[in-house]
Amino acid sequence: MGQVTGKVSPLAPATIAELPPIHGVRLATASAGIRYEGRTDVLLAVLEKGTAVAGVLTRSKCPSAPVEWCRSRFAQGRARALVVNSGNANAFTGAKGIAAVKRTAALAAEAVGCKTGEVFIASTGVIGEPLDAEVIGRVLRSTALAARPENWRAAARAIMTTDTFPKLATATAKLGKAEVRINGIAKGSGMIAPDMATMLAFVFTDAPIAAPVLRSILRQETVDTFNAVTVDGDTSTSDTLLIFATGTAVSRGAPAIKSMGDKRAADFRRALHAVLANLAEQIARDGEGARKLVRVHVKGAVSKNSARKIALSIANSPLVKTAIAGEDANWGRVVMAVGKAGEPANRDKLAIFFGDIRVAAAGARDPSYDEKKVSVYMKRDVIDLTVDLKLGRGTDRVLTCDLTKEYVAINGDYRS
Amino acid sequence: MGQVTGKVSPLAPATIAELPPIHGVRLATASAGIRYEGRTDVLLAVLEKGTAVAGVLTRSKCPSAPVEWCRSRFAQGRARALVVNSGNANAFTGAKGIAAVKRTAALAAEAVGCKTGEVFIASTGVIGEPLDAEVIGRVLRSTALAARPENWRAAARAIMTTDTFPKLATATAKLGKAEVRINGIAKGSGMIAPDMATMLAFVFTDAPIAAPVLRSILRQETVDTFNAVTVDGDTSTSDTLLIFATGTAVSRGAPAIKSMGDKRAADFRRALHAVLANLAEQIARDGEGARKLVRVHVKGAVSKNSARKIALSIANSPLVKTAIAGEDANWGRVVMAVGKAGEPANRDKLAIFFGDIRVAAAGARDPSYDEKKVSVYMKRDVIDLTVDLKLGRGTDRVLTCDLTKEYVAINGDYRS
Repeated sequence: MGQVTGKVSPLAPATIAELPPIHGVRLATASAGIRYEGRTDVLLAVLEKGTAVAGVLTRSKCPSAPVEWCRSRFAQGRARALVVNSGNANAFTGAKGIAAVKRTAALAAEAVGCKTGEVFIASTGVIGEPLDAEVIGRVLRSTALAARPENWRAAARAIMTTDTFPKLATATAKLGKAEVRINGIAKGSGMIAPDMATMLAFVFTDAPIAAPVLRSILRQETVDTFNAVTVDGDTSTSDTLLIFATGTAVSRGAPAIKSMGDKRAADFRRALHAVLANLAEQIARDGEGARKLVRVHVKGAVSKNSARKIALSIANSPLVKTAIAGEDANWGRVVMAVGKAGEPANRDKLAIFFGDIRVAAAGARDPSYDEKKVSVYMKRDVIDLTVDLKLGRGTDRVLTCDLTKEYVAINGDYRS
Repeated sequence: MGQVTGKVSPLAPATIAELPPIHGVRLATASAGIRYEGRTDVLLAVLEKGTAVAGVLTRSKCPSAPVEWCRSRFAQGRARALVVNSGNANAFTGAKGIAAVKRTAALAAEAVGCKTGEVFIASTGVIGEPLDAEVIGRVLRSTALAARPENWRAAARAIMTTDTFPKLATATAKLGKAEVRINGIAKGSGMIAPDMATMLAFVFTDAPIAAPVLRSILRQETVDTFNAVTVDGDTSTSDTLLIFATGTAVSRGAPAIKSMGDKRAADFRRALHAVLANLAEQIARDGEGARKLVRVHVKGAVSKNSARKIALSIANSPLVKTAIAGEDANWGRVVMAVGKAGEPANRDKLAIFFGDIRVAAAGARDPSYDEKKVSVYMKRDVIDLTVDLKLGRGTDRVLTCDLTKEYVAINGDYRS
């Protein structure tokens, strides 16, 4: 993750979502001066008693101290506060890092009035720099006092690092006869790859859903959303997706969901998927240096899993990504990326499309290939690249962005 | 593979190797005008009767037509000619591509006076464009007549695509009491990754080694040479490494090597390794846009295989590569790349070195870390990056280069 450049991605959504309050969630932000000047860098979410929590964390073998803390807190399934800081990831900081997490949790518990173990923590920013918990602690009490139901946009801004725009999404779902709300905020633009995209994402709902059910639903809905985004194939040590369910919609008649098979949760699941998919796409749209959003579709693979591997091979190929940056429908490089995935593929059956334009079929260039038509298509902001393997019924879709000189500048030119 | 820029890599060797003749090998080049103007694009090597051949080919599931041709020719183990063209890879060209290979082989056989099946073929350049065999055929007769034992440098130049310098290496070995020679030429600078590095490489020797033994030795010596180089993680459809043994050193008393276990081949194996390693390093030094050669060393892994996976994860990480381009010893990104490899690693044991300078140890920044000292080191052309996992005895080394804006320019800005 490199420097913050100040320019907003050309792929940013036209409008930033307005998020409604969620009963049982209050938010506030502060400027602790961890690393950045003139901006907020601490988010505190204060959660109603009885809030259930679940999460999906990075599979990195070298996770950050906050990730280890969250992992150890899921079993009890309850949360009363979330503290997020930007500017310092508290990753690869050894025993000091673990101490800093514990100290932050203790200070937040004191400020909010809960147990240390009910505080969840996430950090993002530089790796390997010791994080001083006292710097965060200094602002926690006033932040707790300032916490309000309306501060969603400020919350999304406080957790940004190289992000060029804040990422928010919201949806409603029917749960029994009640309407429940789901709000999500996220950050991430580099070091983005499954699992998970490097990112922090926090989702809040008033739906009364028990922690084990929440966990199961979240895992399933992550597969085709956050885990289907890649900017640079680099998975962070800090990836964290947390969902908090205050359960306050019970007072409006929403039924409590306590078992995995409860059909009444179907619409909640749909709405959660929409929020996660929306945030994941915003992350791809804010890929470092990105000028194009690329949707890589694979169909006709021998399985969904095989389609995913081929889609990621294409989406992570520097040669495919630089060609798209150059607005070239270079399907030869797509063939290369299919070939190197190691998954079943038959060169002589393969078809490749940019948008609806078939550029290659049956192992060769499409006879009706019209380069001018494709060139016009390649000027778009959003490129759909489809590979049909014609072997089976496995399909998948992965989001990525192009690879530009700006990516290299952001990640290589940041030294003074 | 993008445009040829005309600038020579700053990492190019100070001198280009002078290769001695090898009895039984004659070379000539020609300008057929396949794609490039004002340069040679066809290489013909004419080989003595009885020449043994072996090779290692891309594992791409979408190989080029010449790769398929070579694969089908290994069983008989004999070669009389090699035809290489640059400018067009004859990959993903369907039935036309296969026909073009056969036609080229037939025309070469006619020009050289051998059987079609004794002609080996390799092509490099654009994917997906039909290749006209007649264009190559037109120059083959005169090229065969011009073939001479001295033309090594011209041969290495004729096979270049985005390469900025020709790649040649030579070594001698004792075989019995005779001295045998090994010459190699290679090309490759983008779409470079195991297996193999994208490249064409052709090795010639006068050692009398039977094809099955040659094949076994070549495979083993490829593991830590060509298969340990990555520029961009992109494996080509055309990777081809061929070795031709004319066996003419028999006349100088070299013993014929016919079995795998023959100890007399040990020095030949050492010399072959040296030639392959030299050519592989030249490919990394000519990585598209490269300004730094990076040697990634992993030790203390649970196995060699695990060390290789971790080394490749580091060597292919865009964030590590851009940081090195920016002369930043960003070991946080190295931790990230170790973590995402999915191989056994313990964050709290890990040590990371740039050169001899330990920057991180026992899960945190080295207490004696001196950023100024490291900054001076990072200005070098050749960077040694070492990760010690402290888990076992598995070691490995992989070569790569930095990721610069020039890489993106070469691969994205080539359209008019």
